[in-house]
Amino acid sequence: MHQPHFGSDNASGMAPEIIEALARSSAGGVDSYGGDELTHDLDERFGEIFETDVCVVPVGTGTIANALSLAFLTPPWGAVFCYEEAHIVVDEANAPEFFTGGAKLIGLEADHGRLCPHVLRRAAASMDAHDVHHPRPSVLSITQASECGTLYSPDDVRALGDTARDLGLAVHMDGARFANAVAALECPPADMSWRAGVDVLSFGATKNGCMAAEAIVVFGDRRKDVPILRRHHKRAGQLFSKMRFLSAQLDAYLDSGNWLAWARNANAQAIRLADGLQEIEGVRLLHPVDVNEIFLEMPLAVFERLKTTGFGFYPIQPTGKETGAVRLVTSFNTSPDDIDRMVAAVT
Amino acid sequence: MHQPHFGSDNASGMAPEIIEALARSSAGGVDSYGGDELTHDLDERFGEIFETDVCVVPVGTGTIANALSLAFLTPPWGAVFCYEEAHIVVDEANAPEFFTGGAKLIGLEADHGRLCPHVLRRAAASMDAHDVHHPRPSVLSITQASECGTLYSPDDVRALGDTARDLGLAVHMDGARFANAVAALECPPADMSWRAGVDVLSFGATKNGCMAAEAIVVFGDRRKDVPILRRHHKRAGQLFSKMRFLSAQLDAYLDSGNWLAWARNANAQAIRLADGLQEIEGVRLLHPVDVNEIFLEMPLAVFERLKTTGFGFYPIQPTGKETGAVRLVTSFNTSPDDIDRMVAAVT
Amino acid sequence: MHQPHFGSDNASGMAPEIIEALARSSAGGVDSYGGDELTHDLDERFGEIFETDVCVVPVGTGTIANALSLAFLTPPWGAVFCYEEAHIVVDEANAPEFFTGGAKLIGLEADHGRLCPHVLRRAAASMDAHDVHHPRPSVLSITQASECGTLYSPDDVRALGDTARDLGLAVHMDGARFANAVAALECPPADMSWRAGVDVLSFGATKNGCMAAEAIVVFGDRRKDVPILRRHHKRAGQLFSKMRFLSAQLDAYLDSGNWLAWARNANAQAIRLADGLQEIEGVRLLHPVDVNEIFLEMPLAVFERLKTTGFGFYPIQPTGKETGAVRLVTSFNTSPDDIDRMVAAVT
Amino acid sequence: MHQPHFGSDNASGMAPEIIEALARSSAGGVDSYGGDELTHDLDERFGEIFETDVCVVPVGTGTIANALSLAFLTPPWGAVFCYEEAHIVVDEANAPEFFTGGAKLIGLEADHGRLCPHVLRRAAASMDAHDVHHPRPSVLSITQASECGTLYSPDDVRALGDTARDLGLAVHMDGARFANAVAALECPPADMSWRAGVDVLSFGATKNGCMAAEAIVVFGDRRKDVPILRRHHKRAGQLFSKMRFLSAQLDAYLDSGNWLAWARNANAQAIRLADGLQEIEGVRLLHPVDVNEIFLEMPLAVFERLKTTGFGFYPIQPTGKETGAVRLVTSFNTSPDDIDRMVAAVT
Repeated sequence: MHQPHFGSDNASGMAPEIIEALARSSAGGVDSYGGDELTHDLDERFGEIFETDVCVVPVGTGTIANALSLAFLTPPWGAVFCYEEAHIVVDEANAPEFFTGGAKLIGLEADHGRLCPHVLRRAAASMDAHDVHHPRPSVLSITQASECGTLYSPDDVRALGDTARDLGLAVHMDGARFANAVAALECPPADMSWRAGVDVLSFGATKNGCMAAEAIVVFGDRRKDVPILRRHHKRAGQLFSKMRFLSAQLDAYLDSGNWLAWARNANAQAIRLADGLQEIEGVRLLHPVDVNEIFLEMPLAVFERLKTTGFGFYPIQPTGKETGAVRLVTSFNTSPDDIDRMVAAVT
Repeated sequence: MHQPHFGSDNASGMAPEIIEALARSSAGGVDSYGGDELTHDLDERFGEIFETDVCVVPVGTGTIANALSLAFLTPPWGAVFCYEEAHIVVDEANAPEFFTGGAKLIGLEADHGRLCPHVLRRAAASMDAHDVHHPRPSVLSITQASECGTLYSPDDVRALGDTARDLGLAVHMDGARFANAVAALECPPADMSWRAGVDVLSFGATKNGCMAAEAIVVFGDRRKDVPILRRHHKRAGQLFSKMRFLSAQLDAYLDSGNWLAWARNANAQAIRLADGLQEIEGVRLLHPVDVNEIFLEMPLAVFERLKTTGFGFYPIQPTGKETGAVRLVTSFNTSPDDIDRMVAAVT
Repeated sequence: MHQPHFGSDNASGMAPEIIEALARSSAGGVDSYGGDELTHDLDERFGEIFETDVCVVPVGTGTIANALSLAFLTPPWGAVFCYEEAHIVVDEANAPEFFTGGAKLIGLEADHGRLCPHVLRRAAASMDAHDVHHPRPSVLSITQASECGTLYSPDDVRALGDTARDLGLAVHMDGARFANAVAALECPPADMSWRAGVDVLSFGATKNGCMAAEAIVVFGDRRKDVPILRRHHKRAGQLFSKMRFLSAQLDAYLDSGNWLAWARNANAQAIRLADGLQEIEGVRLLHPVDVNEIFLEMPLAVFERLKTTGFGFYPIQPTGKETGAVRLVTSFNTSPDDIDRMVAAVT
Repeated sequence: MHQPHFGSDNASGMAPEIIEALARSSAGGVDSYGGDELTHDLDERFGEIFETDVCVVPVGTGTIANALSLAFLTPPWGAVFCYEEAHIVVDEANAPEFFTGGAKLIGLEADHGRLCPHVLRRAAASMDAHDVHHPRPSVLSITQASECGTLYSPDDVRALGDTARDLGLAVHMDGARFANAVAALECPPADMSWRAGVDVLSFGATKNGCMAAEAIVVFGDRRKDVPILRRHHKRAGQLFSKMRFLSAQLDAYLDSGNWLAWARNANAQAIRLADGLQEIEGVRLLHPVDVNEIFLEMPLAVFERLKTTGFGFYPIQPTGKETGAVRLVTSFNTSPDDIDRMVAAVT
C-alpha cells in the first residue's frame, strides 16, 4: 500500500483516463510537431469550455507556460506586477526574466495571496509609462487559485482586470490550479478568465491528473499575435516532436468533465483534512482553505509526530520558534482513507 | 490499417514497453521535481551503458537538449562550430543563440554531413581566442548520426575530438539518433562519445520509441559543473514536476537492450526501403544510407506517384527542375510490410 | 548669463581641466580600442587613489557601469539585493536584467536610502541558495552617496559588507556620486570601498565635471576574472575605438585632487542652498543633506514661485495635495551666486 | 613630431572643429539625457543632409550603432544576411546576437566585400519565413564603404534594396565609413541610403574626426517605431546623461561640409599611399582602393622594413608563407608628408 503524499499535487501520478489516452493516441503514424488531429482540435475543444474563440499552445511545464505567456505580453523593458510571493517570483529560477528578455517583476503585498486593485494602482502610478528611464508598466499577473490556496471571486478578478485595462496593462492568469478554482467557485470558466479581463491563461493540467501538459490559452484580440507566441514556443524547445501526446492528455482531461471531477475530489479531501487536523489542540490554519492546499501551524510535538509518519509534506517557515508549519496538498486521487490515516497518525 | 508514415521517425508513436513503463511508474506518491527513485537512478543506469561515471539531466525535446548543452559549454561571446546544415543551425528557431545568451554558430562545409578536422582547424584559426573583438572559439558540435543520415566512425569522432581539444574547444554531440548510430556501428557507446573526446551528449530517445524524453549526458571533468547545468535546466522550464515520467521512459528505453533493438529495426527497414526504391529507373541516393534516413532524388513521374500514395514523406529541394527529392525515415516500429507497400506503390 | 540649473548635476557641462585634457590627448596617432598609454596607466592611477591593486574598465554611462558590474557578479539566475528605489531598479529601463541575462533585483526597504544588515539578512534568508527553484542570492548593491542624498559611514558599509560575505553575496557599490561621498566623509576611498568589503565599484565622474566617463573598478580576488568583464564590455559596445578620450577624462579627473575639489564645491553649495531655502516658511527637508542633493517639500505658493524662476529643478511626488516637492542638485561649478539668486527668487 | 599611424582611422584624434564644439557646448546648464537643444535639432540637421524626414538616435560606438539597429529590425528568431567577413560577424564579440536576443547572422560570400542580389536571394530561399522551425529571414545588412575598402554604387545598393524588399527583409547599412563613401561617389547621401531602400543607417562619425559619436538614422515608415528604438537605446546604457556632447560632435561634423572635406582628404591620401607603395617590386593590392583603406600583400623583405618604421599598421593573414600582408588606413588628418615618409621608409 502506498503512503499518502501531501507534499504537492505533483507528487501524484496520472489518472487512468490519461494513461489510456496516451496509449490510444500512440497508434499509427501522424505528422509530427503538432501536425496531428488532436493538436489541431485543441482550439475548438478549449473554445467550448470557455464559450469563446481561443488559441491554445500546449507546453510541458507550468514554469514555461508562465514564462512564455509573460514573454508574449511584455516588452523586455516592461514591468510585471504580481504578488510578492508569486510562483513566478520565488519558484521559477528567473525563467520569467529570461524568457521576456529582462522584464522586471514587481512584487506587491497581498492579503492571503490575493492582490487588490488599490495596491496595483499605486505601484503602477510610481512609473511613467512614457519615460524611457522607467520600466514600462505592462502586465498584471494573478494566480488563481492563489499561492496561499485562496480564491479570487469572479468579481475580484474583474475588478483587477478593469484596473489593469485602465492602467494599460495586459492580464495574465497563472492557472496552475485553475481546475480547482473552477470546481470550488462553481462558475463558468469564462467568468473567471476572459469575461473578467484575462488576456492569457496558463491553464494547468499536470497537477490535477495529467502527466506533463499545460496549455497557454489566448483570448480575444491577443489571438491575432499568436504567430509570435508560436515562435517563442518553438525557440523555447516546447514544440514537442510527438505533440500528439500532449494534446491527448489535454483532450482526455477536458473529456466528460474529468478535470472538474478530479479537482472536486482534491478540494473535498482538503476540507476533510483541514477539518480533521484542526481538531488537534494548537493546530491552526494560516490561510482559508478554498481549494486543495492547506497551510497549517502546529505545536512542535504535532510537527514531530507528522515527521514520523513518513507521509509526504512540505515544511514552511513557522511564525515562531515554538511551532512547526507545513503546506499540505491533496490531489485528484487522494482518498478519504488517505486523509483519515493522516489525521490519525498525527492526532 | 494505418498508413505507413516515412515523414520522420517522430511520426511514430510509443513502443508498448514505454507505455507500460509510464503506467507502472504512475502508481503512488513520490517526491516531485526529480526527487523520485527513477530519476535518482539515471546516472547509474547511463553509467553502465557508457562504462564510466556520468551525470544525466532529462529534458523533453531535442531542441532543448541541444540548446542547454551548448549553453553549458559556451560563454555568450563564444563561437560554436558545426555543419552548416546542422539541426541547431537550420531547424531550431535560434534556440541555441537564445539559451547561450547570444553565442554565434559558425556553419562549416561537410561531406555528406560529416565535418572534417581540417575545415574545423581553418575556421578556428580565423579567430583569435584572446581578442575581445572576436567570437571566442568555444565548442565543436557534431551530429551522430549526421543530418544526412551518415555516420562518423569512432575514429572520425576521435580525430575531431583531438582537434577540438587542441583548439581549446569543448565537444558536443547531437545524438538525436544516437541509438541508430550505435546499432549500425556495433561499437560500445563509449567509443563514440567520451573515449573519442565528447564532453556532452544530447542522447535522443523520443524518435526511437519514446514519447518525449531526451537526456543530456555529461562526461568527465565537466560533471563538476553540472550544478550550473541544473540551473539552466530549471530556468528553461525543463524540470518537470512529475519528472518520474521522463525517467521512466529513459529507464525502459535502456532496459533489456530495447533501444538498440528498436534502432536496429529502423536501420534494417531503411536499407530494405533504399534497396527497393533504387530498383526504380532514375531513382538515386543523395547520401549513403548508414542508419534510418534515406535521401532520394527521383524522376518527376515517380515523385507524383509518391504523392498519390498518401504515405507520409518529407519533400526536400531537388537539384534540378526535372526531378523531385525526398527524405524518408524509418522508425522503431516500421515493418517490412510497410516497406513493401511503399515500394509497390511508387514502382 | 546662464540660468542656474538644479535639475541634476548632469545638467552641468565639463570642467575646463577636462576640456583641456581632451584637447591635449587628441594629438598624434595612438593604438585604438584601449591600446593607448593613458588607458594602460589607468590601473596604476586608480591603484594610487585606492591604495591597492585594482583593475579599471572605463565606460560611457552610469547605467552601463552598473549593468556590467552586476553582469560580472551575478549568474543569470541570481538575485541582487538593493534599495527598492535604487537607480538600478527604477531608472535604468531594465538594463541590469538585460545585461545579467535575467537576474532578479530584490528591492528592500531602507531608511533615507540606506540599507541595513538586518533587512538584507531577512531577505536573503527567504531563499535557499542551493534550491534550483529559487533565485540564487548573489549580490548586494548599495549606492554611495545614496539615492536620497544621504551617506553610509565607512562603518555602515563594512557592516553591510560583512553581512554580505556571510551570506555568500558579492558587493557592488553604485558610486555615481562617489566623489561627493569621499569629499563629505573625508575618509580614504579605500575605507569606503574594498576595505569595507566592496568587490566592484561603479566609479562615477560624469556628474562631477567630466563629459562622459565612468570607471568600473574591480578589487581583490575578483580581478582574476576581469578578462570575462572585458568580454562583457566589448559586447556591450563600450570598448570605445578612441578609448584615449575616456581615459584622458578619468586621468584629469583624478589629477591634482580635482575630483575632490569639485565635489567639495558641490557639497558646500548644497548646504548653502538648503540653509537658504529652509529659511522660507513651510519649506522642509525630506532627507538629510549629506552631499549635493536636496529633497524638499514646500507650500504650493513657494512651488509656484520656483516654477516661475526658469531655473532647472526636478519635481518629485509630494506627500500631500497642499504641497509641492522637488529634488535640487548642485554641481562642481555651481557658484554661491547661483545659490543666492535661487534663494532670492523663491523667497 | 608624431609618427604616422595607419593602423586604423580610429588611431587618429579629433578634428579641431570638434574640440571647439565640445568646449562651446559645455557652457551653461541644460536638461540632461537629451533634453538639450543640440540633441533636439539633430533630426532636422540630418534631415537636411538626407533630403527627407529622419529620426536620429546618437550613440557612442559603432558596435552599439549596429547592434541596436539590428535589434530594432529583427525579431530574436530572425536571420540577418550579411557578408561573411562583415564587422558585425567577426569583430563585435557577438553584440548583434546579444542585443537582438539571439538573431542569427548568416554570412554570405561577397566579391571584395560587396554582396550581390543573387547570393542573397539563394540564401533567403533556403528558409521558409512561415515555418517556426527556421530562422525567419528578416534583415539584409550591408557595409558602405565595405570591409574590403570597396564601394557599392547607388545602383548596387538599390538592386540589393529591391531584392531585400521582395524577400520581405529590412535593410540596414553599416556606414562606419559612410562619409568616405559619399565623398568618393560624389552622390547625394539620399541616393546611397533611403532612396536605394535602406531603412536604418549606422552613420559613423568617430573614425572621421569625431571623438565618440555615431548616429542611428531611421528613414521612412520605420520612424513610427522609433519609440521602441529609444527603449533599446536607454536599456543599452546609450542615453548619455550629458547627451549635448554627442550632439555637439554630430552638429559640428555636419557643419560647413566638414564631414565630406575630412573624408575627401582621407580618400585622397589613401590613393597617394597606394600609388606610392605599388611602385615597390612585388607589392600588390588585394582589393581596389575606393576609399581610405588599402589592403596589400608584399614580399617578406618589404614587410620587415615596414615593421622597423614604427609606424602603425594592421597585419592581416597573407595568402602564402613567402609574403606579408597588411591593412593600412588613412584618416581625416593624414598629411601628404605622412604618406611620403611611409613610402620612403619601406621603399
